[in-house]
Amino acid sequence: MIVVLGGGPAGRLAAMHLSHAGKNVLLVERDAIGGTCLNFGCMVVCALNDAARSISGARDLYELGILDRCPEVKFPVLIREMHNVQETIRNVLDAETRSAGVEIVYGADAVLENKTVHIGNETINPDSVIAATGSVPAIPDIPGIQKAGIYNPHTLSSMKALPGRIAILGGGVMAAEFAYIFSSFGSEVHLIARSGFLKQLDPKQQAAARKELKNVQIYEHTGVPEIPGKDHVTSVMICRTASSNEEIPCDAVFVATGLRPRSDNLHGVRKGPSGEVLVSPYMETSIKGVYAAGDVTGPPYLTPVARHEGIVAAEHILGRERKIEYRYFPQSVNLANEHAFCNPGSEECVSMGIPGPAGPGTFWKVPFGTTGLARVSIDPDDRSVTGVSTSGPGAGIITSYISFLMQRGIIADDFDDFLEIHPETDGVYSLIRYASAYLKERERE
Amino acid sequence: MIVVLGGGPAGRLAAMHLSHAGKNVLLVERDAIGGTCLNFGCMVVCALNDAARSISGARDLYELGILDRCPEVKFPVLIREMHNVQETIRNVLDAETRSAGVEIVYGADAVLENKTVHIGNETINPDSVIAATGSVPAIPDIPGIQKAGIYNPHTLSSMKALPGRIAILGGGVMAAEFAYIFSSFGSEVHLIARSGFLKQLDPKQQAAARKELKNVQIYEHTGVPEIPGKDHVTSVMICRTASSNEEIPCDAVFVATGLRPRSDNLHGVRKGPSGEVLVSPYMETSIKGVYAAGDVTGPPYLTPVARHEGIVAAEHILGRERKIEYRYFPQSVNLANEHAFCNPGSEECVSMGIPGPAGPGTFWKVPFGTTGLARVSIDPDDRSVTGVSTSGPGAGIITSYISFLMQRGIIADDFDDFLEIHPETDGVYSLIRYASAYLKERERE
Repeated sequence: MIVVLGGGPAGRLAAMHLSHAGKNVLLVERDAIGGTCLNFGCMVVCALNDAARSISGARDLYELGILDRCPEVKFPVLIREMHNVQETIRNVLDAETRSAGVEIVYGADAVLENKTVHIGNETINPDSVIAATGSVPAIPDIPGIQKAGIYNPHTLSSMKALPGRIAILGGGVMAAEFAYIFSSFGSEVHLIARSGFLKQLDPKQQAAARKELKNVQIYEHTGVPEIPGKDHVTSVMICRTASSNEEIPCDAVFVATGLRPRSDNLHGVRKGPSGEVLVSPYMETSIKGVYAAGDVTGPPYLTPVARHEGIVAAEHILGRERKIEYRYFPQSVNLANEHAFCNPGSEECVSMGIPGPAGPGTFWKVPFGTTGLARVSIDPDDRSVTGVSTSGPGAGIITSYISFLMQRGIIADDFDDFLEIHPETDGVYSLIRYASAYLKERERE
Repeated sequence: MIVVLGGGPAGRLAAMHLSHAGKNVLLVERDAIGGTCLNFGCMVVCALNDAARSISGARDLYELGILDRCPEVKFPVLIREMHNVQETIRNVLDAETRSAGVEIVYGADAVLENKTVHIGNETINPDSVIAATGSVPAIPDIPGIQKAGIYNPHTLSSMKALPGRIAILGGGVMAAEFAYIFSSFGSEVHLIARSGFLKQLDPKQQAAARKELKNVQIYEHTGVPEIPGKDHVTSVMICRTASSNEEIPCDAVFVATGLRPRSDNLHGVRKGPSGEVLVSPYMETSIKGVYAAGDVTGPPYLTPVARHEGIVAAEHILGRERKIEYRYFPQSVNLANEHAFCNPGSEECVSMGIPGPAGPGTFWKVPFGTTGLARVSIDPDDRSVTGVSTSGPGAGIITSYISFLMQRGIIADDFDDFLEIHPETDGVYSLIRYASAYLKERERE
């Protein structure tokens, strides 16, 4: 028998893969199937962002006079209905997992001791174990951070009302995404980043992202020495210079300062400094037959990576060789547009950019100059595509496929045969085609 | 000197391509740059559909109680603002074309006589000519079809107010797209198709499309013997059986029964039965040095095909061999979701389908069961991907890239290495990955 600990993307896919191959699989989930992705992460952002985009899109049309009025969000209903959809999806995932033949035990906080699994009073000695116990929010050590009115992705859904003023701690993807969401809903948003804001993005794309957060007050290289107030948060103390602190009043704080591996219950396996379980390229831990996959193995904390890792672990258990080797990680930030990127511009390459085209979802962004952008990097020697960044609806899809093509060694000239559907918001293929023609003409001269 | 007749996608791209390569190019445009695509086709649908999706998306959220009210369209403002954005885009295209070095003459109705071009009193004998004069709406020969209140894509923008009841003639892509638009705006819509409705779509995808048109009354295999009324249209007469006619009251009629090549001013070149200019695989007509590209060469009337044809003609003029050879045409229909397809299911293949995933733009479609779908066909012998159909936001982008990969001979197993961005509305890559695993397990048994 194989025991999988954790029903998030890594554990669930591993369990189904093993079961499809005829193995006897027990999946132990302490809380809810779907992991951080469905319950606290990706899908929460998606639910709230979809509502935020609906409102801010309607606001654009209202400003142009095309709509007669502009709707506002009923925040408590939004949270309630989000829970309903999450429950629907959990039911789908549960049914899909069971119908693949996996046995699921809910509500059990399993403890791993070397290769032995303890679930309550029960002890199991399985043939193999996959620990896919995920991650938890990393909460910075700030005096006052435990006050009422302070939320993180795991507690957000206990927020009863839309805050009038909210301080968001963090400068990464999730901080930016929630800043857009609350700002679109009408909250006054202060985003406080210890270092820079959205440092992963190249300067042009970062400028496009900032434009979509024009109502958000962004503080960079700013510390938070204290969260004052009695029981409930009333302000955040910030520190921008060595000498003076500044107090920002707020009704709520959202802590989006990252994740850390949830490995406290995993004993015997070797771990790194942040508690991440150390694994081989086949996702095997320091103990033979014990695997780890997903967030518990440390960053990048990405659902697609977790899924791959789960499959790789399952394949190794099945005696099949498949390694984790990524040359490229496509990633994105969802604001009004999706801002996606994969290995943007390096110095050896020719980099070019164009504004995002008018297409589905961007026609009415033309008057506001927020159609996004497309940028590509091409190696002038062999004209291989080496990097992409693009902002707009569908940017994540485009970037996933371009990244896949980059892995397969695509060169710009290959796009001569690309036959697109029109209109689309994809400026990337046309820019690559242009770059190919430009570089070829340059060689002819 | 090279003369290009028509500033639509075919002519404009050909002109720029030639100019970039150092040629002296004159572009003659009788009306507005951008052709049918920008002025009467793709971008009009995009503008109206974006507004329609905004309203129907807000309506979904209002029904769930998440928004406090539901906006309505101010139709005349919508048309006016659409004209403003079109003008913005025309200015961009004009500037881009001129900065490539192309000379543009507007407002001239050019006549081609063999290889000679007449523009007003002027006669030009260029080295080469590219005729890219596009298409016009094909208006069926129905008594009363010239009445006031009857529109086609070329006259739609003269519509002063949103019709309470509109009859749409046609059963193809454009008819479906306008049915969705007017229905979302609150018009009562009757769609009358001479044969079947959206026949290009496979049955599952057609069902998904019909679900998004639930407020549209669709009449299939239905003729229109007459449009009665005095000066202004008041009803449409339809004929569903041999014996009896039926009268459908309406305030307006929209004729979306297709296009025909605009070749009346092209003399000397050989043409087909619908007036389409006949061309070689290099887009050369029956007269050496005279090329044709785009809609004037007949169906498929698609912007990406027109663009390719323009480039192929330009390349041949430059003495470079490049042929038009398409194995796959990705296409789409834009309703609430985009419904895109490329070579869907053939009998020799394994076809599989799943509902569209919850992702950007579909989270709040989960309660309504309208997240779309993903379907793929795989050849079980070599596991090559042979067809795709998918409905959802971004479906057209997905289908364009899958079609490109199909052209390049992708097999399902190659998707093992696909690293997606999550969450997305792309169900295709995961379905292909599932199909690969399924077929491999089946072979192992």
